[in-house]
Amino acid sequence: MRAIVINCTLKRSPERSNTEALAAVVIEELRERKVEVETVRAVDLDIPPGVETDLGPGDPWPEVHGKLLDAEILVLASPTWAGHPSSVAQRVIERMDGMLSESDDEGRPVAYNRVAGVVVTGNEDGAHHVISDLSGALNEFGYTIPGQAWTYWNRGPGPGPSFLESEEGRDWSITTGRAMAANLVAVARALAEHPVPPPPS
Amino acid sequence: MRAIVINCTLKRSPERSNTEALAAVVIEELRERKVEVETVRAVDLDIPPGVETDLGPGDPWPEVHGKLLDAEILVLASPTWAGHPSSVAQRVIERMDGMLSESDDEGRPVAYNRVAGVVVTGNEDGAHHVISDLSGALNEFGYTIPGQAWTYWNRGPGPGPSFLESEEGRDWSITTGRAMAANLVAVARALAEHPVPPPPS
Amino acid sequence: MRAIVINCTLKRSPERSNTEALAAVVIEELRERKVEVETVRAVDLDIPPGVETDLGPGDPWPEVHGKLLDAEILVLASPTWAGHPSSVAQRVIERMDGMLSESDDEGRPVAYNRVAGVVVTGNEDGAHHVISDLSGALNEFGYTIPGQAWTYWNRGPGPGPSFLESEEGRDWSITTGRAMAANLVAVARALAEHPVPPPPS
Amino acid sequence: MRAIVINCTLKRSPERSNTEALAAVVIEELRERKVEVETVRAVDLDIPPGVETDLGPGDPWPEVHGKLLDAEILVLASPTWAGHPSSVAQRVIERMDGMLSESDDEGRPVAYNRVAGVVVTGNEDGAHHVISDLSGALNEFGYTIPGQAWTYWNRGPGPGPSFLESEEGRDWSITTGRAMAANLVAVARALAEHPVPPPPS
Repeated sequence: MRAIVINCTLKRSPERSNTEALAAVVIEELRERKVEVETVRAVDLDIPPGVETDLGPGDPWPEVHGKLLDAEILVLASPTWAGHPSSVAQRVIERMDGMLSESDDEGRPVAYNRVAGVVVTGNEDGAHHVISDLSGALNEFGYTIPGQAWTYWNRGPGPGPSFLESEEGRDWSITTGRAMAANLVAVARALAEHPVPPPPS
Repeated sequence: MRAIVINCTLKRSPERSNTEALAAVVIEELRERKVEVETVRAVDLDIPPGVETDLGPGDPWPEVHGKLLDAEILVLASPTWAGHPSSVAQRVIERMDGMLSESDDEGRPVAYNRVAGVVVTGNEDGAHHVISDLSGALNEFGYTIPGQAWTYWNRGPGPGPSFLESEEGRDWSITTGRAMAANLVAVARALAEHPVPPPPS
Repeated sequence: MRAIVINCTLKRSPERSNTEALAAVVIEELRERKVEVETVRAVDLDIPPGVETDLGPGDPWPEVHGKLLDAEILVLASPTWAGHPSSVAQRVIERMDGMLSESDDEGRPVAYNRVAGVVVTGNEDGAHHVISDLSGALNEFGYTIPGQAWTYWNRGPGPGPSFLESEEGRDWSITTGRAMAANLVAVARALAEHPVPPPPS
Repeated sequence: MRAIVINCTLKRSPERSNTEALAAVVIEELRERKVEVETVRAVDLDIPPGVETDLGPGDPWPEVHGKLLDAEILVLASPTWAGHPSSVAQRVIERMDGMLSESDDEGRPVAYNRVAGVVVTGNEDGAHHVISDLSGALNEFGYTIPGQAWTYWNRGPGPGPSFLESEEGRDWSITTGRAMAANLVAVARALAEHPVPPPPS
């Protein structure tokens, strides 16, 4: 079983990413469960704007798209800016839009029988909205969202510390992140054994 | 396999409900797949405000709660008002909040291994937001959201006809609604065969 | 100058409301600025579902509607449940929908030249979304939303204490609430002096 | 009086932009009202990710930031992708975040006494959410949102034609866009005459 984790921080490598730090909890738990995990730091790729799978020479997206098709599990990890998913996360969603018109050998949308979850960090309130927006879009593309397949961390009210700057509340986010990984793997396995058939025509 | 469909229209019986009309497509397809379907028109019950499962004598919620626990599949159907889920849908979500602290015999949140989907109608734009908000809340409670487990109907821009007043675009909503039912049943069956275990402690 | 503050807590009087406690900061500052403030605890009124201004005998909404028309300033105060505005807040929004088709003597939508702001409390993350959803709906009806006309309080991540149970972060919410009141009054006065004319036909 | 209109289409010049076409209605009406209008097509600028006003040599944002400070009126125009504001719109929001810590000569946040509105197009449902998300963020930064300062166009349900491909429903979007321009100008003038003072300390 394979997973791809896309970190949608605004910070380029090698700057430290809070979102990466919380996603690492989920990754560790996925690996404990024998899942091969591949990670992508989307901002480093300078993904161009568009809603198609391949925008031509130099487009880094087709490689990410290939990794999405190789993985049964997708984790989208985003910081919170103005209460919204990051522009990098929305860019990833836009490029995934092309998957809506791609089918597998049996005529199913390619995202069928794959599962997805969301990790959110922020220096302010907004995680519920980011989780709903991102998992809503992934579900629209065909991903199944296992129960409680998310975790988040922030400290309200008003702007405050980032995940790497505060110990407060971290235990909850870590426990929730480990449960998220377990739920992703369990539902991905159930779907591997009992795949969803093509939609009725 | 059993399903509960909660219609969150603002209109009391026997007034005609657009949301019920689109939900009927999903119900028919569920029944074709041998699912026993129970329906609840929440507005008729005058569900009192609160976030606990039982608010005492006269509270109609415990009976709905029992039906939720009897069903592997939940369909929440809501009209769109000001671009949001209806107050009746939000009332249902609030009363379901109590399920967060209820566990089954094996220590799993009671919504685990159940699936949910959303049906939305409107006389104006807003369905994507209603779907994300409602499926986000149900996922928070522990429901798994199968890929593409939703359908909707509206005609933008600006206020326009209701579902029962226009034929336009209906085919898409019906086809999508039938696929939704198929996806709900397939994932519910997969989870019945391979249940998600309790979260790691 | 007059203001109406609608508290959309789920708790009936005389139970203590966290939302009321934070709204009180805004009310005090409005009164300091010579604004007459009227308060409504919507849940106590059992407002029936619908999207018209008057649903007939026994409907308490027409009285609230009259107070809305008497006030240049509206403050909508809501708790956060599942990251959304409360069902009581959405009920208020639905009943305000009728104002979309009501015009003043000069042909302007009745909400024109009135201002609105939002107060949010929660025992979990979600305030940004509640503020955007509620102020978005009020703006759709015609209310002007002065810059930074909101305040909120919660403590993430995960469920935590309520406003009345924790001192943490309160100063920020109070300072922000006082600024909110000042901004509401300043913009209401500007519009009283220089009213927005009817829309071009 | 000056306005800046930022088109957040994903399409680079000179490709035709649906969002630009609907924004043109608002621009025309602003010019009729003697407003000087400057336009920016954000995607052409390759704005780098970040939340500060100046990211150093080659950063095109400081020039846009200067135009924002020169204008009393801001119009943010975005397409709808997966029901969300475009990644380009979110990028603009993120770069505007730096304005939160900038004050004018009298100690007011720099966005105070400026007004903003939102234009949305889409080939599918989602406009209400895009309007609420974007105007919510601009309001957080300090912009006043005049009543009904938005317009949108789409055709639901399901993916459909774009604004430039269909005449249907256009009249409503155009009338609403003209009213939006009138409301932006009227409130900007009211605030120019009666500015909001600095927040109470």
